[in-house]
Amino acid sequence: MTYSAPVAETVFFLEHCTGLKKLASSGAVADLSEDVVRSVLEEAGKFAAEVLAPMNRIGDLEGAHFANGKVTMPKGFVEAYRAWAGAGWSAVSAPQQWGGQGLPVMLNASCIEYWTSACMAFAVGPMVSMAAIEAFATHGTDALKRLYLEKIVTGEWMATMQLTEPQAGTDLSLLRTKATRQKDGAYRLQGTKIFITYGEHDMTGNIIHFVLARLPDAPPGNKGISLFLVPKFLVKNDGTLGPRNDVRCASIEHKMGIHASPTCVMVYGDNEGALGYLIGEENKGLACMFTMMNNARLAVGVQGVGIAERATQQALNFARERKQGRAQGSGDSASPIIAHPDVKRMLMTMRALTNASRAICLKNADAIDRAHHATDEGDRYVAQEEANLLTPISKAFSSDAGIEVSSLGIQVHGGMGYIEETGAAQHYRDARIAAIYEGTNGIQAMDLVTRKIGQSEGKTMERMLAGYRETARRLATLKDAAFGAIAPRLSEAIDALERANVHLRTALDKKPNDALAGATPFARLFGLVAGAVYLAEAAQASRLSMATGNDDPAHLARIATARFFAENLLPQAGGLERIVIAGAESVMQSDFVLSA
Amino acid sequence: MTYSAPVAETVFFLEHCTGLKKLASSGAVADLSEDVVRSVLEEAGKFAAEVLAPMNRIGDLEGAHFANGKVTMPKGFVEAYRAWAGAGWSAVSAPQQWGGQGLPVMLNASCIEYWTSACMAFAVGPMVSMAAIEAFATHGTDALKRLYLEKIVTGEWMATMQLTEPQAGTDLSLLRTKATRQKDGAYRLQGTKIFITYGEHDMTGNIIHFVLARLPDAPPGNKGISLFLVPKFLVKNDGTLGPRNDVRCASIEHKMGIHASPTCVMVYGDNEGALGYLIGEENKGLACMFTMMNNARLAVGVQGVGIAERATQQALNFARERKQGRAQGSGDSASPIIAHPDVKRMLMTMRALTNASRAICLKNADAIDRAHHATDEGDRYVAQEEANLLTPISKAFSSDAGIEVSSLGIQVHGGMGYIEETGAAQHYRDARIAAIYEGTNGIQAMDLVTRKIGQSEGKTMERMLAGYRETARRLATLKDAAFGAIAPRLSEAIDALERANVHLRTALDKKPNDALAGATPFARLFGLVAGAVYLAEAAQASRLSMATGNDDPAHLARIATARFFAENLLPQAGGLERIVIAGAESVMQSDFVLSA
Repeated sequence: MTYSAPVAETVFFLEHCTGLKKLASSGAVADLSEDVVRSVLEEAGKFAAEVLAPMNRIGDLEGAHFANGKVTMPKGFVEAYRAWAGAGWSAVSAPQQWGGQGLPVMLNASCIEYWTSACMAFAVGPMVSMAAIEAFATHGTDALKRLYLEKIVTGEWMATMQLTEPQAGTDLSLLRTKATRQKDGAYRLQGTKIFITYGEHDMTGNIIHFVLARLPDAPPGNKGISLFLVPKFLVKNDGTLGPRNDVRCASIEHKMGIHASPTCVMVYGDNEGALGYLIGEENKGLACMFTMMNNARLAVGVQGVGIAERATQQALNFARERKQGRAQGSGDSASPIIAHPDVKRMLMTMRALTNASRAICLKNADAIDRAHHATDEGDRYVAQEEANLLTPISKAFSSDAGIEVSSLGIQVHGGMGYIEETGAAQHYRDARIAAIYEGTNGIQAMDLVTRKIGQSEGKTMERMLAGYRETARRLATLKDAAFGAIAPRLSEAIDALERANVHLRTALDKKPNDALAGATPFARLFGLVAGAVYLAEAAQASRLSMATGNDDPAHLARIATARFFAENLLPQAGGLERIVIAGAESVMQSDFVLSA
Repeated sequence: MTYSAPVAETVFFLEHCTGLKKLASSGAVADLSEDVVRSVLEEAGKFAAEVLAPMNRIGDLEGAHFANGKVTMPKGFVEAYRAWAGAGWSAVSAPQQWGGQGLPVMLNASCIEYWTSACMAFAVGPMVSMAAIEAFATHGTDALKRLYLEKIVTGEWMATMQLTEPQAGTDLSLLRTKATRQKDGAYRLQGTKIFITYGEHDMTGNIIHFVLARLPDAPPGNKGISLFLVPKFLVKNDGTLGPRNDVRCASIEHKMGIHASPTCVMVYGDNEGALGYLIGEENKGLACMFTMMNNARLAVGVQGVGIAERATQQALNFARERKQGRAQGSGDSASPIIAHPDVKRMLMTMRALTNASRAICLKNADAIDRAHHATDEGDRYVAQEEANLLTPISKAFSSDAGIEVSSLGIQVHGGMGYIEETGAAQHYRDARIAAIYEGTNGIQAMDLVTRKIGQSEGKTMERMLAGYRETARRLATLKDAAFGAIAPRLSEAIDALERANVHLRTALDKKPNDALAGATPFARLFGLVAGAVYLAEAAQASRLSMATGNDDPAHLARIATARFFAENLLPQAGGLERIVIAGAESVMQSDFVLSA
C-alpha cells in the first residue's frame, strides 16, 4: 500500500504536451522554470507519500467524528493539515497579492493528484478551499479580502462551498435559504444546507463559508440567488476572532467512502440569523459560484486521476508478487499473475485510463493557464472556451476512470481485493463520489452538449477537432511498428466524434430531448478521443526524444500505453457514435418500461 | 427500499423462451405444471419480500460476529433461516430421493434471484449448500448420503465448499491441506482454508464441510487433489450428533460488502486431525468439485441478476419521487427526475442489463434441465455442452451487470446514493464480490475461450450461433416500428461474435497468449449478443401474444427493453470484436509499461 508520486511522468507531460515552457519563457508567471516545476512536484510527491499516504487507512477506519456540534478529525489529520499548510501547499496557484505563489493551475492540479492518491478524504477539504479562493479573489470586495482572503490562501483558515439543500441539489433554482439585509450593509442568513464538505472540523481556528441564499425580494429561480461569505467565528477589524456566528453543524453523513471527510448538515439562524457579507452583486451569486465550480470540477476530475494512480500502483505491486497458475511459455512453478495475458489486460487498462485522464486534466489546466496568462486577449478568449469545453470531460471521464480503475484494482487482487485490510476496496469506495459531486457526470454531459460544443457557433469544438486531426496526421507519417494502429484508430475515432457532434448540434435545435439522451455516450466518446490523442502526443514526444539518443525506458512505456489505448479502448468510439446518433428514440420511448 | 419479486416477468420468460412447457408435458418431472411454477414463484417472492428484504440493512450494519471460535449471525437471521428451510426452500431442485422436490433448476435459479434481491448476504449461504448437494448426490456413497444428505437437503444442516488456501486461490494445484488415510477407511485432515463462505455460524446444529485436500502419496498438481466430507460435529450411525470434530473457525474477514455472510478462516487438525470421508475417488476430487462449481457459477450469475433487480427497483422508485429541474415540454414546476432523458438512459440501461442477465441465466438453467431430463441421450449431451458454454457467460456477464447496474443505481440517487442510509451503496458494495468468487470473471472468460467454444470441435458454439441467427432472421420479417433496429443490430453483432470466435479458435493453436488476451472482451461480446437475442425472443413472444388480443402493457415494455438493448448496448459489439481480433499484441507487448 505504499505510494510513489509519478513526478517524472507529470514533468514530461507538462514540458512536452502543454504550454508550460512557453508560459515560463513569457515571463507572465514570476520565477517559473523547469527547475521550479520539478522541485515543487518532487516536494509535493514526497509530502504526499510520507505524510498523507500513511493516514489513508486510519482515516477510513476512524472517520470524522461528530458530537455536540463539533467534528473531530481522525488521528493525525490536524497535524498533517498544519504541516501541509505550513509548507505552503494551500497557496500554490493562489494570487501572489494575497499570499499565494501564483504558480500555474497545471502545477496545482498535479499536486492535487498527489494529495488525492495519498489520501483522498484529506485532499477534498483543501480542494474546496482552493475553489473558494478563486471565486472570492474574483468577486469579493477589497475590504472583505483584506480580512479573510490571505488567511484562506495560507491555509490558516479553510473555506467551504455551500450550495445544496434537501430539495435543491442539481437544481439550485429550488433553494430556500434566506438572507435578510441589515442596516449596516451586512445580511442575516437562515436555512439549512446539506452535503457540505468540511463544513465543520478541528483543523483550523476559523472556517469561512461561501453560502448561496435568496433575498426576500429576489426574483424566483436561478436569477434570485446571491452569494455570501459567512464566517464560523466573526472576525474583528483587526483580524482577531470575535464571537461565534449563528451557524452550526447539526450532523455528519455516514458515507460509503472518504470517511475522514466530514460531510455536514449546516444550520443557519437558530437565533437572530448568521451574519453574512455579500460576494459580488445581489442576485448574481450563481455566476460567482460557477467560478468556484469550474475550478472544482477540474479538481474532481483530478481526484479521479489520483485514485486511479493509487489503485494502479497497488495492483501492479500485488500482481508482481502474487503467484498463481503457469503462464504460457513459463517454467514449471507458478508464475506471478502479471505474466497472465488477462491480468496484463487489466493492468494495461488501468494504466492507460489513468494516464489518459491525467493528460486530459493537464490539457484542461493548460487551457486555464493560457486563459489567465496569454498576452493576446483573443488568445485568452479562445483558451477560456477550450477550458470550458474540456472541463466536463475532465470531470466526467476522469471520475469514471477512477471508478473503473479502482474496480479493476479489486479484480486484480481477486478475493483479497474484497477484504478491507488490503486497501483496494477503500479506493473503490472512495472513488465513487467523484462521479457525483460538483455536478453529477450526467450534468457534465448535458453541460457539454447544451453549452460547450456550441461555443462561438461551434468554432471552438471545430478547432479542437482540427488539432486532434493534426495529431493523427503527424502520427500517420511515422513508420514505427511500436505505434501499431494508433494513427488509423485515432483517425476513425475523430471522424466518429465529429459526426456525433454535428448530429447533436442539429438535434439541439430540432429534437432537444434526443440531444440530451445522447449526452452521456457523447461525453464518453469525446473523452476517449481526447485521451487517445493526448497519449499519442506524449508518445510522439517520447519518440522524438528517443531520436536524440535518450534511452529512458519510460519513452517506450509511453508509446506502448498510447498504443494499448488506441487498440483496446478507443475502438469503443464507433459504437458510441452510433448510440448517440441512433439510440435516443429508444431512450425516449421507454415509458412502458419505466412506468411498470 | 421495498422489494417486489418480478414473478410475472419470470413466468413469462420461462413459459415462452425456455423448454419448461415441454419439460412439464414430458412427465420427466413429477407434478410440474404452469400452476405449480407460478405458485412456487409467488410464494418465494412473498417470502423474499416479507421476511428477507427487511433484514438486508440490519445484516449490513451488524455483520456476522466472531468471538472465541463462534460466529453469531445478525439479528433475525437464525429465525429467518429456520422459517426459510422449514418452508422447503432449500430443497426446490434437490433430488426427491433425498427429500428434495426435484423441480427444475430454472425454478430454483429464479428463487435464488429473489433471495438475493432481498438479502444477498443471507442468500449466499444456502446457495453454497445447494451446490454441495449436487456434488454430494452425484459422487457420494449411499452410506454417507444416508447419514448426511437428507439433512442438508431439508436445510436442517448447511454445507460449505472449501477450496481456497492462502497460496491457492485461482490455482488449486498449489493447495496443501493434508489428508491421511486411517485404518477404518476414514481420513484425518490438517491444514488451513480461507475465504470459506458460511464456514461457521449459529443457523444450524451441524455444518457439513466439503474440503479439498491432498493425500501423502498424491501426484503433484491438480491430479492429486481429493474431496472429503468433514462434519463440524461427528455424526453417529443413528444420525445423532457425536463430539466436535477437529476443525474450527479461526477468524472471519472484514469485507466491503455482504457483511452478514461470515467469510471464515478454517483450521483443520489442531489435535489429531479432523475426521473426513472421501467423496468420489482418491485424487479425483477436482472433478467432483467442478460439479459443485458449475452449479455455483450459474448461481453467482443469478446473484448478479438479483442485486441488479433490487437496485433497479430502488432507483425507479427514487426517480419517480425526486423532483429536480424541468424536463423539456413539462410545466413550470420541477419534474420528477425520471422525466429527464439522461436519467431515462440510466434507468433503461439498468432495466435492460438486468433483464438480459436474467434471460441468459434462465437459458443456462434451461440447458441444465434439458441435460438432466431430455429423453434422448444425444439431446442430453448437446444440452450439457450448451450449459457448459453458457455458464461462464451467466457468471461473468451477470455479475458485471450487477456491478454496473448498482453503480448506476447510486448515480440515479445523486448525493443520496453515497449515503449509507439510502441503501443504494450497499447494493454496490455487495454486488462487487460476485465478479470475484467461484472463479474470477477473468477465469470465466478463459474457461469460455480455452474449453467451451471448442467443445465438439466447435459445433456447439456453431449451433448456438445458428440459433441466434434464426432469431435475428425471424425478427427481420417483422414490420413493426416498435422493434426499431433490433434485427439489423442483432445480425451485425452475431457476425461480429462469429468472426471473433473463428479468430480465437485459430489463435488458440498458433498464438495461445493472444487468445487469452482476448478472452475478457470476447466474453463481454458473447454476453451482449446472448442478452440481446434472448430479450428479442421475449419481445417476439410478447408480440405474438398481443396479436391474440392480450393487452398486458408488459408486452410493450418487453419490446421497448429489447429495442433499447439492441440500439444502446449492443452497438458495443463491433468495437469488442476489433479488440479481440486486433488488440492482443499491445496487451502482450506491455512489459515496458508494467515493469516500470
